[in-house]
Amino acid sequence: MKKISVGLIGFGTVGSGVVKILQDNGELLRRRIGFAIELDRIADLDIDTERGVNVERSILTTDARAILEDPGIDVVVELIGGCEPARTFILSAISNGKQVVTANKALLADHGEEILGAAQRAGVSICFEASVAGGIPILKALREGLLANRFEKILAILNGTCNFILTAMNENPGTPFDQTLREAQLLGYAEADPSLDIDGIDTAHKLVLVLGLTHGLRPTTKDIYVEGLRSIDPFDVLMAREFSYKIKLLAVVIDHGDQVEARVHPAMLPETHPLANVDGVFNGIFLRGDMVGEQLFYGRGAGKEPTASAVVADIVEAGRHLMAGSPRRTAPLVHAELSAPSVSVMDMAQVKTNYYLRIQALDKPGVLSKIAGIMADYQISIHSVVQKRRESDGAVPVVFLTHLAREADIQKACRKIGELGVVQEMPIVFRIEDESLA
Amino acid sequence: MKKISVGLIGFGTVGSGVVKILQDNGELLRRRIGFAIELDRIADLDIDTERGVNVERSILTTDARAILEDPGIDVVVELIGGCEPARTFILSAISNGKQVVTANKALLADHGEEILGAAQRAGVSICFEASVAGGIPILKALREGLLANRFEKILAILNGTCNFILTAMNENPGTPFDQTLREAQLLGYAEADPSLDIDGIDTAHKLVLVLGLTHGLRPTTKDIYVEGLRSIDPFDVLMAREFSYKIKLLAVVIDHGDQVEARVHPAMLPETHPLANVDGVFNGIFLRGDMVGEQLFYGRGAGKEPTASAVVADIVEAGRHLMAGSPRRTAPLVHAELSAPSVSVMDMAQVKTNYYLRIQALDKPGVLSKIAGIMADYQISIHSVVQKRRESDGAVPVVFLTHLAREADIQKACRKIGELGVVQEMPIVFRIEDESLA
Repeated sequence: MKKISVGLIGFGTVGSGVVKILQDNGELLRRRIGFAIELDRIADLDIDTERGVNVERSILTTDARAILEDPGIDVVVELIGGCEPARTFILSAISNGKQVVTANKALLADHGEEILGAAQRAGVSICFEASVAGGIPILKALREGLLANRFEKILAILNGTCNFILTAMNENPGTPFDQTLREAQLLGYAEADPSLDIDGIDTAHKLVLVLGLTHGLRPTTKDIYVEGLRSIDPFDVLMAREFSYKIKLLAVVIDHGDQVEARVHPAMLPETHPLANVDGVFNGIFLRGDMVGEQLFYGRGAGKEPTASAVVADIVEAGRHLMAGSPRRTAPLVHAELSAPSVSVMDMAQVKTNYYLRIQALDKPGVLSKIAGIMADYQISIHSVVQKRRESDGAVPVVFLTHLAREADIQKACRKIGELGVVQEMPIVFRIEDESLA
Repeated sequence: MKKISVGLIGFGTVGSGVVKILQDNGELLRRRIGFAIELDRIADLDIDTERGVNVERSILTTDARAILEDPGIDVVVELIGGCEPARTFILSAISNGKQVVTANKALLADHGEEILGAAQRAGVSICFEASVAGGIPILKALREGLLANRFEKILAILNGTCNFILTAMNENPGTPFDQTLREAQLLGYAEADPSLDIDGIDTAHKLVLVLGLTHGLRPTTKDIYVEGLRSIDPFDVLMAREFSYKIKLLAVVIDHGDQVEARVHPAMLPETHPLANVDGVFNGIFLRGDMVGEQLFYGRGAGKEPTASAVVADIVEAGRHLMAGSPRRTAPLVHAELSAPSVSVMDMAQVKTNYYLRIQALDKPGVLSKIAGIMADYQISIHSVVQKRRESDGAVPVVFLTHLAREADIQKACRKIGELGVVQEMPIVFRIEDESLA
């Protein structure tokens, strides 16, 4: 029986999930793939904590070099996350000729060029299915199953923590964001320091990886407009419902040929949209290919076993390359060959979409006319207006939905509106992804 | 620039879709994959009809042998469908050492063993992503992305014609099946001879291919319980809505370890189930893996470009094997290595699920007690009963939903109930796939 030898760096949640899968489904896997996967070494700084899986003490080490420099190890699985020492470990694995599997989106988003370039030069594969949408094999679908398509549009829910919070705010009308976040933390769905998730950075990391596969783009997260959840008010969640929308944190990709919209922000989505019912910790990717039309992929985007499922699929992928003697096979796919040099990320100011604007205005004659006048000055066409009842302080929230408008115009109009004496604070802005509004 | 040479047999709808994709997205593809796909020959009995794509007259032929026996052709794409001459062509391509791409589910379901065996012996790949769920890359997901999982449950809508008809019957209450079918035929969503679709056979063909990948099973369609749409009455569609169900034609796979349920029939599905909103001609695959949990894949399961998108992805897959010099790579995956000899398809009589029974009974004292008595005799536990108002002929439809019951018991009870003097016809039976009923 042929076998490949695997070394695992990082024995945390996902790492112990990988061990569990290789133990529970090892025999099934062997029959399916025709070779054995042997987990020969596990490195972690902490090798004493109980992980709920049985591993021989002798394969544990606190020294990653015991894996990186072991000539018997074929595949190195990096699951420690973060930038360093993950970057150094992966570069070392590559230079030692090992196939690499990782779930490290932050590292690949920030240092993808360096790492993928090194892998290509060394003729080894970097597999990273687990880095986007956990257990959903979306990268494989984009890179292989759907590669005959131009990706005209992608809307994706890629962060389970944000989606859990937004689902909870939608299901418990009136609950403030801070309280919902605290509840998510208590339930283990949000980190003690939640900023990577709720500020949209994790989603942006994933979007960078997707853009590499779909458009040959390799922007940094700085090239992408990123807005998180912190400004979401229960009032806007309720208003969204009134308009039959749901607020979701979306990664948005829209192909305009030489320019590609790429942005991360909370967006209002029609309740009938296939993504609108992707709730709780689930992830979902909605896309439109020029040939396949609309597709949706839905599943668990995080968690021990779902993420480990993708890691093990990547180990098998790497193993198959080794068995076939063709480790270079996937390398070109994640590389610049795809890139058309003339394509770039569209400046956010040029993006056109629909908008929800909430304006705290004094309930005085002529206020609406002043606001509407400013919007007209900036070519913003109003689709509908809802004025809610007066609040105790005499201010009323007025909500506008716009037809397609340019981000730059919206921002300028909002500044002008915010300066009006009858308006009490800067308008609250949400983008709406609803093709029926136009 | 490296290139692969492709010969296409069958220049119908999907064939012309393949030509369109290679023309429209050829440059994009070349950049993505690093080699060129050259369509060098197209064979069809009819090479005169206008296909809406420009091809040089010189590459057209009416003789498939001009492709099969051309040593310059690397990949043969079979898109004529049906059993013969497709089988002969594919076997000839294999024996000539060509990679094969096909969308022919009927052929692979009925002659898979022979064709896949020949391919394995010859060391060539048979790629057939387009044969199941059209543009949705579900076979790749099952075979590669999710291969670390035991597939505990799969519910799938795999036939766009049936789903179009069922969606229309649901949206137009009271419209009979025959009329809906005729409308679907007028709109081009159903064939002149619709039996392959509406009798569930096409779905069963696809289920056979799925079972090969997920469970190493290679049953014939005769080993699978297959029931189509013809008996669906608008009354049952309305009743389903009353119970918050939707009727869908489902392929069902449930893993019981040594036995696997595999069945095709109309089923009632909770409106909240992710598949319930897969409407119109769309396909959807819902699955539960022991590691990834629940996933949904949704998209167009048929049509020119969506199916051609999958065919082109397979051409690339075959081309990559050629480029890597490892044509055998996927062969083991579609083969018996996966099969655990002790696993078999469960006899339908042993299947346990929930049932909807509609019984046309006379409105007389004691009728309900007689029916319920028979059900009790067969250990069928009743979840709910709805009796509708008396119809003109004095009969009333009585609808029962059952707790989990055994198919054999349901069938026996229905025969007994049908023999009651107060019952006017054999009970109408629908299976319910609703885990909350139990």
